[in-house]
Amino acid sequence: MIDNPMPDLPAQLAFILEIDKLKGVVRQTLLTDGSRRENSAEHSWHLAIMAILLTQYAAAPVDVARTMKMVLVHDLVEIDAGDTFAYDAAGNVGKEERERLAANRVFGILPEVQGRELRELWDEFEEAVTPEARYANALDRLQPLLHNANTEGGTWRIHNVKRAQVYKRMEPVRIGLPEIWPVVVKIIEDACATGWIARD
Amino acid sequence: MIDNPMPDLPAQLAFILEIDKLKGVVRQTLLTDGSRRENSAEHSWHLAIMAILLTQYAAAPVDVARTMKMVLVHDLVEIDAGDTFAYDAAGNVGKEERERLAANRVFGILPEVQGRELRELWDEFEEAVTPEARYANALDRLQPLLHNANTEGGTWRIHNVKRAQVYKRMEPVRIGLPEIWPVVVKIIEDACATGWIARD
Repeated sequence: MIDNPMPDLPAQLAFILEIDKLKGVVRQTLLTDGSRRENSAEHSWHLAIMAILLTQYAAAPVDVARTMKMVLVHDLVEIDAGDTFAYDAAGNVGKEERERLAANRVFGILPEVQGRELRELWDEFEEAVTPEARYANALDRLQPLLHNANTEGGTWRIHNVKRAQVYKRMEPVRIGLPEIWPVVVKIIEDACATGWIARD
Repeated sequence: MIDNPMPDLPAQLAFILEIDKLKGVVRQTLLTDGSRRENSAEHSWHLAIMAILLTQYAAAPVDVARTMKMVLVHDLVEIDAGDTFAYDAAGNVGKEERERLAANRVFGILPEVQGRELRELWDEFEEAVTPEARYANALDRLQPLLHNANTEGGTWRIHNVKRAQVYKRMEPVRIGLPEIWPVVVKIIEDACATGWIARD
């Protein structure tokens, strides 16, 4: 028997094929042209480019490479657990446990060292404590806000979301991108004035 | 007049909204479940994760952060220039000039320093000379090959693509991921045997 020169490759290829399923996980957010709802793969791509662009506003200095990796993998658990709409209280029951099991399975496909690296980035994103995780979470909230503001209220209007709910949801932007927070407040208040966000 | 504390932000937000259009640029490649064709935004996301995973096989040591950035932006020119199918000779006439003009406009939306950084990464990808660009180009060819192999020949079969055309198209994998090349050869030869790739 000769040694297998690429022992990691089958697991890596299996993972690469598995994550293709994220392109079929549809979020509530509309594309900015209003043509359809966004899927979680293209959403993650959008966040990764935002991560490159907005570092100057992060609350604390961030490692952009770690942040890119984090946002690229932050939704992979949805392959098993599905996307839960942020404003759906019932749907969010048991979400944490569903996603933890999904993380075990999905990241478990990879060779151990790589699986552990990506799993730890996912845990870090969820805990939202480190500068990169706070920045990544802020991006993850800012992007759908921009989409809603550019699709006549988008999911706010469709689901009759209230002002206080939006402020609560956007809290990670205040924490992770404090300089941008006044811009977010203006977008929310304008959307309230237009009637795209419901009164409390 | 007080100084604007965030002179870059309007251009950055305009770019973030502009690139949403890439989600509407549809490629030939099918998703691995065969349900629909892939768009260039989710394709770019897929490549960025592959860039994290396959560095150990790159022909020369690569900076993974630079590679991720490169693949994240490598298709942005398609917002104006559209996706040109690799095996469409007529469609590829004038492609270079169309894409250059598109790069001028799209990257030109950004603040100058950021626009230049991303534009240079796009130029570097196109020139395919640096280790990162060779690695990125290899990923960009490997991913649709994996999709074709998992969708009963996918675009090879649909467009009656010939063996020699596939080998020519896959050349960047031989250059950028030489260790993986034997795996690619096996996939191509198996697809020829099954009749998914046409005889020369």
